Order: sequence, then structure tokens, then C-alpha cells
Amino acid sequence: MVVTKQISLESKGHCHIIDITPEVEKKLAEADVSQGTVTLFVTGSTAGISTIEFEPGLIADFQDMWQRNVPTDIPYQHDRAWGDGNGHSHVRASLLGASLVVPFSNKKLALGTWQQIVLVDFDNRPRSRQITAQIMGE
Amino acid sequence: MVVTKQISLESKGHCHIIDITPEVEKKLAEADVSQGTVTLFVTGSTAGISTIEFEPGLIADFQDMWQRNVPTDIPYQHDRAWGDGNGHSHVRASLLGASLVVPFSNKKLALGTWQQIVLVDFDNRPRSRQITAQIMGE
Amino acid sequence: MVVTKQISLESKGHCHIIDITPEVEKKLAEADVSQGTVTLFVTGSTAGISTIEFEPGLIADFQDMWQRNVPTDIPYQHDRAWGDGNGHSHVRASLLGASLVVPFSNKKLALGTWQQIVLVDFDNRPRSRQITAQIMGE
Repeated sequence: MVVTKQISLESKGHCHIIDITPEVEKKLAEADVSQGTVTLFVTGSTAGISTIEFEPGLIADFQDMWQRNVPTDIPYQHDRAWGDGNGHSHVRASLLGASLVVPFSNKKLALGTWQQIVLVDFDNRPRSRQITAQIMGE
Repeated sequence: MVVTKQISLESKGHCHIIDITPEVEKKLAEADVSQGTVTLFVTGSTAGISTIEFEPGLIADFQDMWQRNVPTDIPYQHDRAWGDGNGHSHVRASLLGASLVVPFSNKKLALGTWQQIVLVDFDNRPRSRQITAQIMGE
Repeated sequence: MVVTKQISLESKGHCHIIDITPEVEKKLAEADVSQGTVTLFVTGSTAGISTIEFEPGLIADFQDMWQRNVPTDIPYQHDRAWGDGNGHSHVRASLLGASLVVPFSNKKLALGTWQQIVLVDFDNRPRSRQITAQIMGE
């Protein structure tokens, strides 16, 4: 059995990290499936999905890591060609990955207590985001 | 319902990035499934799979990021032991990840217009690559 | 058909890399499914899952990459707030990813000969780990 749902949200961009766990749990509660996987996939090439302990310190630490390893203030060919100024956003998104698969059993996601599912929006402006949450199982 | 297909391609290695979206869409069109996931998995430990806006600027930017963060010109224990010269290729592949799961609905992948599925071949020589494209759904 | 199993193991932390391929293959052998996916998901926010050629040189090279790009010896806000000393562990885990999906066919995983599934435990102390291995298919 397959149930395909959409999660829509507004992000501020600039490495905005949004906890989507409550939305994912809500979609799972609505679906008539007790055991299986939730596949999360963000449409667009400047955002990614992962898990993190969602607390202010780690949010800042994760953002700092991106700035150190895929800086905003170095030249990008993408920006030279298109003038978007978001070359770093694309590169970060490709490295993090657009999808995450989380198994569940008895309608409970396999997450730890301090492990939340997050959207990371790397774009350099606010964006409306669509995340597909596809529930598959029995 | 599960359909397991193979995508075979020739890569040049050295961070060659190949758009496999048309091949994935072709496999999906052939399968008698309208809603579900495509799981892509590259066999081998020196290549990875992700998504990117497939345009020359970003391809160069993504390659530059790999060279900055997992350089070719530093010593690797793997190379010292085995003489393959591709220690960096393995490390990059383990960081990027060998698999990607993309949901689809009404036979349409959840990709954005400027979001393509790519193989990234990090090896230091041309390679023949096998990617499993497994379609699961109903 | 969905089969949800648990893999339990003891890790040493500090970027300990453990080959879990034999355990995954064992769970697959026990399940009455011949074609589908195994979704691996580690519970907790300081460990990740990937694939690597499991040999001592690459294990050291992969650990070195983490030390270069997400160092242990820089300040983390998480450590300032909570005193855990494992801010780097969380950041590394969020970058690597908590889940991996591997397709199989005729009960054989799509892995290459030198491609093993590994848990990477980034925490700064020994941990008991739980990995969900969920088998879905027909």
C-alpha cells in the first residue's frame, strides 16, 4: 500500500533548518499503514533533508560546518553564468541529499528521542517548499 | 509490486557527473506501477548518486568542492597499501552515498524542473558502471 | 510484505566504523522475501550509515576526512550549552545521514565485492547501538 502526501512550508533560506517531524508523524497517523517506510523527498535543487538533535546549539554548529566547507564567499561558476548568487546553495544541497527514508513499525518512526527530521534550506532567499512524504507498507 | 532493472553506462571517472534522469524515467515508463519509489543504487565503492541542477557551472562547482574537501593531492593510507591511487575516490563516495530514493506518483518522479538525478564517478580511471533501479509500488 | 528487524551492536565511538553487512545478509536470509529493498536506519543522532571498501587503509582515510572537515578541536555551541563534548559527533552524523536503502534481487544485495555496509559511530564514548533493518518486497 502506497500513500503519497505533500508537506508545504515557508522557509527563510540562508541555511534555515526546519523540524518537520510533527508533520511527518501527522501524515503517518492519517495513513492506514502500520509498518513500512516514509520516504521524504524535497523538490528543488537548493535544499536537503537529514536528521539532527533539534536544539539551537547544534543548529548553529551545523550551519557553521556548511560555511567552513562550502563557503558563501568564494567564486562559483554557477553565479558567474546565471547571476543567482546561490551557487553555494546548490553545491550544499547535492552533498547533503534530497531524500531520507525512515522505517516505522506499529505506526512509530524509528527515530531516537533527540533525533528530528529536518529540512535544510540552503537557498539565498525565502522559499515556499514542497516535500513529498510517501508512506509505503502494510 | 517490485521491478528490478539495471542501468549500464560508461564513465570517464575523475569526478565525471552523468545525468541519469532520462534512463530512470524510461525504466519507470516501462514498469506497470503508477505510484511508489525508485531506489537507485550504484554497485562499487568509488561512485555515488545524488541530485543537482545539471548545468556546466554547477558541475564545475561541485567538482571544485570535492577537490577542496577531499583532495586528490594528499596522502591516503589506501594508496600506500594498495597503490591504486584512488583513496580519495573511495572517501568521496562514502561521504556522498551509494543510494538515492525518489518517490513518484501518476508515473511522475517528484523531481523539480531543475533537479536531475546524477551518477558521480570519483574513480581515477574510466569505468563501466552498473546502477540498480528498483521500482516498488502499486 | 514488510519485515522489521533490529541489529544491536556495541561500538567504541570516536569514529568507530563497523561492517554490518553479515548481519544485514543474515536478516535477509531469514525473511521470506526474494526481491525488494533493505532500509537501514540508525536510531540516535551521533551515528550514520554508509558503504565503504572495508579495509584498514580506507577506514583510516575516512576517519581523517572527518577530522579535517568536521574537527573535534574547534568550539561547538552544543558543547558550550550542554557540556557533552560531542558537538562534532552530531554535525558529522547529520552530514553523513542516518539511513541507507539497498535493493536486492534473488535474495542478493546489489553490493559490489568490495563494498560493505557500515555503521559509523561518531560519538565520543562507547555506545550500544540499535539499527532498524526493514525488508520490504515480494
